[in-house]
Amino acid sequence: MRPLVIKLGGSAGIDLEHFLSTLAQLDRPYVLVHGANVELDSLMRRVGLEPRLVTSSSGQVSRYTDETTMDLFLMTYCGKVNKRIVETLQRHGANAVGLSALDGGIVRGRRQARIRIVDDGKPKVLDGDYAGSIESVDVRLICLLLQNGYVPVLTPPALSHDGVAINVDGDKLAMELAIALGAEKLLVFSNTAGLLERLDDPHSTVAKIEIDRIDEYVSMAQGRMKKKVLAAADAVRRGVGEVILADANRDDAIADALGGEGTHIKGSDHAVG
Amino acid sequence: MRPLVIKLGGSAGIDLEHFLSTLAQLDRPYVLVHGANVELDSLMRRVGLEPRLVTSSSGQVSRYTDETTMDLFLMTYCGKVNKRIVETLQRHGANAVGLSALDGGIVRGRRQARIRIVDDGKPKVLDGDYAGSIESVDVRLICLLLQNGYVPVLTPPALSHDGVAINVDGDKLAMELAIALGAEKLLVFSNTAGLLERLDDPHSTVAKIEIDRIDEYVSMAQGRMKKKVLAAADAVRRGVGEVILADANRDDAIADALGGEGTHIKGSDHAVG
Repeated sequence: MRPLVIKLGGSAGIDLEHFLSTLAQLDRPYVLVHGANVELDSLMRRVGLEPRLVTSSSGQVSRYTDETTMDLFLMTYCGKVNKRIVETLQRHGANAVGLSALDGGIVRGRRQARIRIVDDGKPKVLDGDYAGSIESVDVRLICLLLQNGYVPVLTPPALSHDGVAINVDGDKLAMELAIALGAEKLLVFSNTAGLLERLDDPHSTVAKIEIDRIDEYVSMAQGRMKKKVLAAADAVRRGVGEVILADANRDDAIADALGGEGTHIKGSDHAVG
Repeated sequence: MRPLVIKLGGSAGIDLEHFLSTLAQLDRPYVLVHGANVELDSLMRRVGLEPRLVTSSSGQVSRYTDETTMDLFLMTYCGKVNKRIVETLQRHGANAVGLSALDGGIVRGRRQARIRIVDDGKPKVLDGDYAGSIESVDVRLICLLLQNGYVPVLTPPALSHDGVAINVDGDKLAMELAIALGAEKLLVFSNTAGLLERLDDPHSTVAKIEIDRIDEYVSMAQGRMKKKVLAAADAVRRGVGEVILADANRDDAIADALGGEGTHIKGSDHAVG
């Protein structure tokens, strides 16, 4: 049975306990991928550091992750958040196993230590970044766990080719994993109800996007949602059956998303038929 | 092949990079168990908290682990330390998988939320402790990983019967795991060279202890070493072939310990013969 990949955002405003208690009842193989963005910002401030976002010369905004930040990244992503999720799933009867993408060499990527950024309108070069892009996924460990009834719970960082931890984007991690596993569906949960036609109207969710009309919808999306829609289309083109962008805070979020709520991105019908 | 269990203390003064680079060359199945005591103290102080040690009415000293401390415990044990170890082993060619004893329900124990302590000579009751004792070990996940060529790297906490994370002693975790796995040897590495006959003479290591003469040696040991010797004797009585207390900082610590360095605790020869 092709597994599901379920991504849970690391943003504020998600009732984790409720979401996980319903997830634990899901009666088919799945992998949960999560982030811990808000927790990392919070820990950084507790130890007197200010999170640093940088804008690349191509306009991408990302977290500058020096060595100290990577230590705190490991603490929040792999420590507190990953293990509190495992604890909660275990309490609700799912035999969860928490992993980073370092473990078992699941995800390898290229570290980009030196980045070109735009700071106050001026181009600059910044060194010492522990961040990079995903280049390969080794699904053997994940498959071994799924075949034996475990629920893998996966979080960044990944491993660079020279063997250091690198910050990779959580949505992209979920997407690349879904592609590598040949997942039937990738469900991306956040604190919003998918792509909205009108940003100020929470009831204007776009129900269905066929990927040969993707451009119309990308221009509708703002900020992080634009990235999500583009990544979703990419995942579908590369073999994932369907990507669903859905609201984590519904009473029965997973069943609702599988039943049609949220934004469903699929191959075009004529391509499927 | 019966695996080895290798315990690495979480104390200061261990050259982790060197130790792990030699460990990664070990050509037989093993599980690494580690703590992160010093790292947790350090993180607590960085966020403005003072680590709290309590003395039970029976004289045992332990860390009081309230909910906030458990979050920081997860951050250091399962986050920074576990994943930096995995990263280093991976860099040196060992296919490490970092786990807490929560994952896959590996270790279950009884939470003792209310503890009776002695504070300033007076008996007191303290509530809200997330700590407990190990009651069962489920080795299925560890065996699955070993059979597939992975190196499990295991750290506290464990899971209570009602599904919450509990602080359990790292040495006891290694010992119970060794017993449950039927390990050939349990190697316990720290920043000292085993049990010393004279505490001020680092060359006075006791080479061999037969467990039917254990009492003589327990009276020789001080503080934490007394606990280690007693636990070692218990492990041997319960089926572990041999327990070795050894120095993590030797050039080739693992080979030296297997070759006779440190203190070796075994069943008595007549019992074995």
